[in-house]
Order: sequence, then C-alpha cells, then structure tokens
Amino acid sequence: MRVSNFFISTQKEAPADAEVASQALMLRAGMIKKLAAGLYTYMPLGLRTIRKVEAIVREEMNRAGAIELLMPVVQPAELWQESGRWEKYGPELLRIKDRHQRDFVVQPTSEEVITDLARSEIRSWRQLPVNFYHIQTKFRDERRPRFGVMRAREFVMKDAYSFDRDFDGAQRSYRVMYAAYQNIFQRFGFEFRAVAADSGAIGGSMSHEFHVIAETGEDAIAYCPDSSYAANVELAEALPLIPARQAPAEDLCRTPTPGAAKCEDVASLLGLPLSRTVKSVVMAADTRGDKGQVLSTQIVLLLVRGDHAVNDIKVSKLPGMADARMATEAEIVDAFGCRPGYIGPIATAKPLRVVADRTVVNMHDFVVGANVEDFHYTGVNWGRDLPEPEVADIRNVVAGDPSPDGKGQLAICRGIEVGHVFYLGTKYSAAMGASYLDENGKSQTLEMGCYGIGITRILGACIEQNHDARGMIWPEAIAPFTVVICPIAYERNAAVREAADRLHAQLQEAGMDVVLDDRGERPGAMFADWELIGVPHRLVVSERGLAAGTLEYQHRRDEAPTSVRLDGVLAHLRQRSQS
Amino acid sequence: MRVSNFFISTQKEAPADAEVASQALMLRAGMIKKLAAGLYTYMPLGLRTIRKVEAIVREEMNRAGAIELLMPVVQPAELWQESGRWEKYGPELLRIKDRHQRDFVVQPTSEEVITDLARSEIRSWRQLPVNFYHIQTKFRDERRPRFGVMRAREFVMKDAYSFDRDFDGAQRSYRVMYAAYQNIFQRFGFEFRAVAADSGAIGGSMSHEFHVIAETGEDAIAYCPDSSYAANVELAEALPLIPARQAPAEDLCRTPTPGAAKCEDVASLLGLPLSRTVKSVVMAADTRGDKGQVLSTQIVLLLVRGDHAVNDIKVSKLPGMADARMATEAEIVDAFGCRPGYIGPIATAKPLRVVADRTVVNMHDFVVGANVEDFHYTGVNWGRDLPEPEVADIRNVVAGDPSPDGKGQLAICRGIEVGHVFYLGTKYSAAMGASYLDENGKSQTLEMGCYGIGITRILGACIEQNHDARGMIWPEAIAPFTVVICPIAYERNAAVREAADRLHAQLQEAGMDVVLDDRGERPGAMFADWELIGVPHRLVVSERGLAAGTLEYQHRRDEAPTSVRLDGVLAHLRQRSQS
Repeated sequence: MRVSNFFISTQKEAPADAEVASQALMLRAGMIKKLAAGLYTYMPLGLRTIRKVEAIVREEMNRAGAIELLMPVVQPAELWQESGRWEKYGPELLRIKDRHQRDFVVQPTSEEVITDLARSEIRSWRQLPVNFYHIQTKFRDERRPRFGVMRAREFVMKDAYSFDRDFDGAQRSYRVMYAAYQNIFQRFGFEFRAVAADSGAIGGSMSHEFHVIAETGEDAIAYCPDSSYAANVELAEALPLIPARQAPAEDLCRTPTPGAAKCEDVASLLGLPLSRTVKSVVMAADTRGDKGQVLSTQIVLLLVRGDHAVNDIKVSKLPGMADARMATEAEIVDAFGCRPGYIGPIATAKPLRVVADRTVVNMHDFVVGANVEDFHYTGVNWGRDLPEPEVADIRNVVAGDPSPDGKGQLAICRGIEVGHVFYLGTKYSAAMGASYLDENGKSQTLEMGCYGIGITRILGACIEQNHDARGMIWPEAIAPFTVVICPIAYERNAAVREAADRLHAQLQEAGMDVVLDDRGERPGAMFADWELIGVPHRLVVSERGLAAGTLEYQHRRDEAPTSVRLDGVLAHLRQRSQS
Repeated sequence: MRVSNFFISTQKEAPADAEVASQALMLRAGMIKKLAAGLYTYMPLGLRTIRKVEAIVREEMNRAGAIELLMPVVQPAELWQESGRWEKYGPELLRIKDRHQRDFVVQPTSEEVITDLARSEIRSWRQLPVNFYHIQTKFRDERRPRFGVMRAREFVMKDAYSFDRDFDGAQRSYRVMYAAYQNIFQRFGFEFRAVAADSGAIGGSMSHEFHVIAETGEDAIAYCPDSSYAANVELAEALPLIPARQAPAEDLCRTPTPGAAKCEDVASLLGLPLSRTVKSVVMAADTRGDKGQVLSTQIVLLLVRGDHAVNDIKVSKLPGMADARMATEAEIVDAFGCRPGYIGPIATAKPLRVVADRTVVNMHDFVVGANVEDFHYTGVNWGRDLPEPEVADIRNVVAGDPSPDGKGQLAICRGIEVGHVFYLGTKYSAAMGASYLDENGKSQTLEMGCYGIGITRILGACIEQNHDARGMIWPEAIAPFTVVICPIAYERNAAVREAADRLHAQLQEAGMDVVLDDRGERPGAMFADWELIGVPHRLVVSERGLAAGTLEYQHRRDEAPTSVRLDGVLAHLRQRSQS
C-alpha cells in the first residue's frame, strides 16, 4: 500500500475529553473518529486492525468447529419478552418502535434469536453438538459511554452459542471454546489471563473472563504467577494465613488506646504489627414480613485481621446475609454499649452472631476493641477469653496470599475484559422451549453456552497494554501495517524513490503487509506519524544508506536503529518478526 | 468442508408466503431464515455467498482506488437535520430515541456521516480526489417488506462516496465507479445492464442503475442489443418513427364510427392499421394563487399514435405541465363540445394547446375524433386541416423503436436493480458546509458522488436470473460451494468413503471450494439437496464407478452426467469452470 492511495490523518494533540491512553492515541492516529457519545467511525487505519482481529477470531472459531452465520441487528421484542429480558434488561437495552409502532431492540447480544433458531432447526440428537457464531454490530445504550472503543455504545462483537444434549456435552463445548480463546489471545500476542468470574446478569454458573493485563484496567485480578490460577479479586478464595492456632502466651489485658479508633492507630500506639490486630465490622440482617416491613434485625459482627478488608460478595453468600447491610451507629451502640471504633467481640451489651475470617480464627494474643471508649483488649485468645466463633472466608485476597490451587503465591494485577465464556444451562432454552428428541424419541431441553469476544474493544485493550510516550506499539498479528518504508526525500531524490519503490514491490511480493510513505514528508514528522501509529517494523531508505548498500531498520520497541544490508532486508524482517 | 462439520437444513416445500422464486428457494435451501417481516438471519450457507460477494466488491473497489472504513449503524439525528433529510425522508427512515430521549436514526445510507467526516478531515485540494466506502448493515422501514432479501428491512449494502474539486473531477470519479461496477457484475457472472436512471429522492442529475436481467424484475428496461444503450422505459428517448411527412393523398372526411370510442375499435371498423389512428389524451394544468386556490386552468390536448402510450414523466417536463392532471369529463365536454371517445384537435369548442408526439407530427392521412359523438375524421393532414402543433417526445418507447444512440433497434426487458451510481454535486456538501482550500487558498465546496451495491439483494437477483424447477444455479464466483462430492453409501462402503475422502483432500489442496456430503443420505435425497442449493459442479463417487476408475461429473446446467476418469478430475473441473 502507498500512503498516497490510503488515508492517513494524524493529530499532534489528543482531544481534551480523551480519558485513557488508548482513546487518545486512536483519535490522534486517526484510527477512529468520534461521531457522537459512544459512536465511532472506524477510519481506514482502524478498520485494517479490526479486519485482522476478525480474521484470527474467525479462523480459530472455525477450527474449533463453530459455524458462522449472521443474525440481524434489529430484533423483534416478542423474543425478548419470551426470555424475560425485555423487562429485566435495564436502560442499556435500546428499545425501539418501527413505523407500525411494533417493538424491537437494537441487539446487545443474540441469545434470544439463536434460541429461536435452534428450537426450529434442531430436531434430533444427531444434530448435536452444534455451535453457531456471528461477528455483528452490537448496541448497548451506556449511561456514560467512555474510554473510546472500550465502553462505546455501538461496537462489534463475536458471539457464539453452543447447543448440547446434556451438562457433560455443554462442559465439553465450554472447554473447546476456552481453548479456542486461549489460542486467539495468544495469536494476538497479548499478555492475558483467563479469570474465573461471576456470571452476572446473563445467568449460569460456569464462567471465565479473558483479561488483557494492563495497569489501566477496570478490574483487579488475583493470579498465581506459577500456575494458571486467576480470579477476580472479589471472587478469589482467601486461604487461612496461619496454618494452626498457637497456645496463648499473654494475659487478657484492657489497655488504654486514647483516640486510636483504627487498627493502624492502635498497632502504632501499642508498637505491634498491624497483623496482631483484629478489625470489627458490624452488619445488620433484617427479617421482613409480606409487605416488606422489618420484623426483626440480627446484628452480626465480622472479624478480619487488621491488615485485611471485608469482602461484601463473600459476606452476602453467608447464611441469612444475602440482603445484610451495614449497621447504623444507633444499632452498634445498642448492641455493643459503645460507639464504633472501640467495639469488639468480648462482653458485648447484647448477645450477637460473630463470624471470624479463616485467618482470624487461628490468631492468638491478638488485639480487639474493648467495647469501652478509648480502650482495647490485648492478649486476646479464642476459647479462653471468648467463645469459638463461626468461621468463613469473608476477606479479599491480598498479594502474597497462598494461591487456592496450592501452587504458589497470589499476585494482584489489573485487567481489561475482552472475552467471556459462559455456561448458560437451560436458562434460555427452557424459557423459550428449545428442545430436541433423544435416541428414545423423548424431548429434552437443550443445554447452552455463550461465548463473546469484543472485537473493537480489543483494539483499546491492546493499546493500553502496548504503548509508550510516542504512541501505540502493535503486535505483529494485528498491526494495521506490519512494515513501513520511510524514504528520505522521496519526491526529490530519484535514487531513493526507485529503491523505495523496488523495496515496496519486493516486500509485497514476499506477502508482507507493507506500507510505503510516499507523501514526501520531512523525516521528523514522518517518523513521528509511524511511531504514533505503531507499525512494528520501520525501514528508512536514504541516499547515504544506499551509497553504503544499506537501510536503517528499527523495531518499534528498539531503542535505536540498526543498519541492514539491502540484500538482507527480507531475512532480517523475517527474523525480527519471529522474535 | 464436510457437511458433518457444517449446517445444512433443506425443506421440501417453500413457506406459503414466499412470493418470488428466489425467496422460496433461499428459504427451502436454508440460506436464510425469517426472523420477522423483512428481517432475516443469514444461515451458514447464505453467509458463504454473501462473503464471496463482499470479497469481489471489496477487491474491485480497492482496485478502483476507493478506501474502506466503517461508519456506525446508529447515527445522530442532528446530521440528518442539517442535510434536511430528517424532515424529507418518509417513514422508511427508522427514527429512534436513546435513553436520554435524544434522536437517532438506524441508517438507510450514510451521506450525512461521510459529509460530516469530509468537512473535518478534508482541508486541502492536495487530499482530493478521495473515495470512501463501507460495507455495513442498513435499515429501511419498508411499509410492506417482501420478496425475501430483495425488499428486506435490514440488509447489507456497500456504499461509496467520492469527493472531488469540481464537476470534471466528479465526472471522472463517476466514470471510475461505473467501470468498477461493470467489473463487479461481470465477475459475478451476471447478465446485466447499466441503465440511465432518474436519480429520485437522493438528488443530483447524473445517475445509472445496474440491473440484473430477469423476467421477474420490477423495472422495465429499454435497451439496444447492438450497443450499450439502456434506460428505464419511462426515461428512454422515443425517436420519430416516420422520418419525414408525406404529402396528403386523401381528402378530409367525417366518417361515422358508431360505438368505436377506442383507436383499436376505430381501426378495426375502418379496416385501417392502428398506426393510422391518433389517440387524444386531455390534461389540465391549473395556475394557483398564494393560498393554493385555482386561478385559471389550461386544457392541453396530447396526441400520440394509436399504438403508442403517453409517458407521464415526459409530459411533466413540458413547460407549464409540471403539476398537470388528467382533465375531468366536464372539462373535456366544455373544451371539445363532445364527450371523451370522439374528441380530436379539429374544430374544438374552445381554442386549446395541442402537443403532438414526434411521430404524430410526421403522419399524413390519419384518423382522429371529430368532436361529434360516433364520428371520426379520416384523411387528416397537418397544415391543410389543422394548424401545425407543438411537438415533443411524449410517448413511451416500444420494442422495435430505433435506439437513441442510432445503433439499432430497442428491445424491452425486465430487470432487478442491484447497483446505483449517482452524481450528487454539492447537495450535501453545500447543506453541511463541506469545503476545501484550493491552490489559491480559496474555500470551495466539495463535489460529491455516491455509489451503492445491495450486497444481500444480489443473492435474490442472482437466483431470479439463475434457477430452474429443481432449484438455484449459482455462478462459479459466488456459489456457496463450487464443487460438491456426493458419495453413494458413504457410511457403509469403505472403498467409496476412502475415495471420497481422498478426492475431498485433493480438491481442497488444489484450492477448490469443495464440500463433501458425508451425511450418508440416499442418492435421491442427496442429489435433490445439492440441486436445490445449486452448487455448480457435482462429482458422484460410487462403487461401480470406482471399479471402472471413474467418477460421474455433472454441471448444474448439464442435462446428464458424464463419466470422468479419476486421475483426470482436476483437469476436467478446471476446464468446466472456465466454460
């Protein structure tokens, strides 16, 4: 490709409203152009990368046995009413009316349409398993679209839907897709992790998110560098940090801690490590009558180590705690006889439920509030000073925690979700009556899974992971161009022009996705453009180089250029492409 | 591809509501599946053809220098208000509101968005000419969607938009696109014609439609088999059929024609050819005041030969006739002193405007109504019996008319519009302020053209042109598969299975788009499926054939199979692919 036959439009400055690096760089490089909030035109440069992303996704989906079709963007409301999502889906579902005032949606996903298709097309067990996918425009009416293509309203998604006879089959289909996703993100050249995830609104119970690792990611991920374990921080299991409880070494002592209401202050005042203190968090669980009126309220004291944090999701899964809330100050004073800051499990004003984290229950000689203002107990020990508590995993994991798979220690990183595999079970097939006849002629409900990849979002995530102060750095597989030829004085110097043209033809011949910058720009501006755009390999053709029979090669990640002999360019490019 | 890894779902009967052959066949073959009125899922088989169509369109657009990008499906109303189309476009424009009650459209085309892009991206004459295109989902809220993919509501279109400095440039861009469209439809293997067209609602004055020739087409096309001339019947110029007027040979004679109110009846009664009679059609042109009240009415008598028909579009272009209507019976009686059926240009009750067709003005000794009930004049001659009329082309062309380009005679056929090239001029660029700076730094309005191809509609049009009683007949270039291997008793016969598998591998190796029917269907059902689907080349592998070292080959258009030696299959396929 010659730039003169293409459309390059770079800008020095990013628009003021760009919030993240990928958004700013894509706008500056002219990969996208904003049309309205959350609506972008993919400019020629951006579309090239999208097409490469799509091609890899398509190849791996086909290889995994999935079959491509194309479902409409506009879908009738009736199907969404059948599945129940017409009511349940929030305002992100763009509901529209046609000229006859009939209801439709602009699709955010296609579970309903594919289930409708399956219930009429799949009749027999002989047709199973089957996995359909499409790559299609989606719309989610985000309240606050932002981060460019990462939280746009209109976007391109690959969504696949598997149909199986039973749970075992669905699990196999799930594993096949999981493996295909691993291949896809590996081929993109990403640092990524498959993360055990809560399945959220779509429903189902087996689910993994695929995250591109990037400091700017919205999600915190706990992972084990020595194994494949990874989970959202909020879901990762926190193991006890103390294997077994030791015998008491201190006496229980009510110690003055004036003004020290936080564990950090208490530890500092007493000259103890924070890990010797225990944090008291008070929740209230209401029991309600038919009309929602509160019949009774149970006060629950949660105990985690001073250096840990309570995990709300884990707490909500404790018996009776699904709708628990933070206790009010009045409730705390009533239950503990003391205001917050100095409360603890010993000698409370009223009897209450105490839940200790798995680490706390193995502590000895620890520090808790004394239920008297400006006092804490030190040398506290279970059994001796207070009864054995209820024990549960109620804290967030922290870096250094043992990995739940027993294979090392957890680290914490941030990630951007770019893919998701879900086991759906019969959520949609049961609601919409999608079944098949088994070998005995008996009707059985289809088992489903769904599998999404955010095609356009991948561009943003990739850039968040791969950029520097000068611009984007595209991995080889999805760069808008793989090689750029930058001739110095292309328009004025015939020798340079001929050499550049010849090199361009030679690399094209060799099947390389090469672009020749024939605009005649000055070297500074030209180099800045291509560093911004992030083409991995750059070749500079200059008069001086030609005189020596060489070109200047620089990979986008190299610190400095290297001189390469003209006749060795192809070999050099091939070698650097593999490294 | 093996059918066992694909999804084939054929039906014996077409749904009752299928109105045309292409719709019935696509539904029966499982190429599309109806989701709602005018909304279709493209099934795996249909999508294969769509992708081939897209690939050819993309290749030829790129070759013609157009640059691909991707504009959103959902577009803000503001731009449509700027261009004026928000008000002007009828209910086919799907207008929607987002969660903040802001107005948007689901795009039917993208003139507004591309003009908005051009006004911010194109600054200098150096960037011109440029032509952007995208292949994207469109929506037109048809009142009565029908004919399957041919008049669907949601469809895929390739739309391109050229930007030029001036009219000459725009003409060049137009010609480049015209040539690209010729290449595209030739590569598809269609019998088609580029037809001079009225540009309708989009605006502009230079416009061609590309029609696939098919008996079931909605449009009538006049074309010259000996040249490239083609036009919509309503727009084709009708030349005089009589080169020069001959001298009168008969006297004017008022002849009784009792009950013969039509030219056909008069000619029959008088024993004359229909081409000796002249038809009188009376129109009325009102002049209106500020408030729409009628100030005066001019009665206009149109004269065409008895075997011709008045063309309303041509009449509307006569001076003062833009809003003319058919005259009422009362107006006719008032102007002619006679009721319709026996009226004519001689001795009218009141003076009136007479417009004669170019053929009529060269007639002699002709027949017209006598303005007396049950009487006609015969032997009528211009100049002698009535004054010379106003002359204009006011009739439809008919088969056998001379071609306006002087290169033969016109024929009439029917066509399906699949492409359209428009010269837009400054309609959008002026309304939306899209300009560039010329060499002198002066701001100039961009000249635009737009160029559409209905990607999904092409499937329907192709089938209308290429099908028989057994099913579709795909041209090589866009067939869902090019070659099908039909093994007899694939599951039971190991020799057949091995030979079929080997052949499948061999043809894949050779780069052919081959499908192996490994379902183990009976031959009858299997052949019927592939004839319905319309794969061009069929190879039958049977035990008997293998014993003789042969396969049975049949092209979808062949009457009977031919025997081909196993080792000559590839050569045979290549030879038949080119024929």
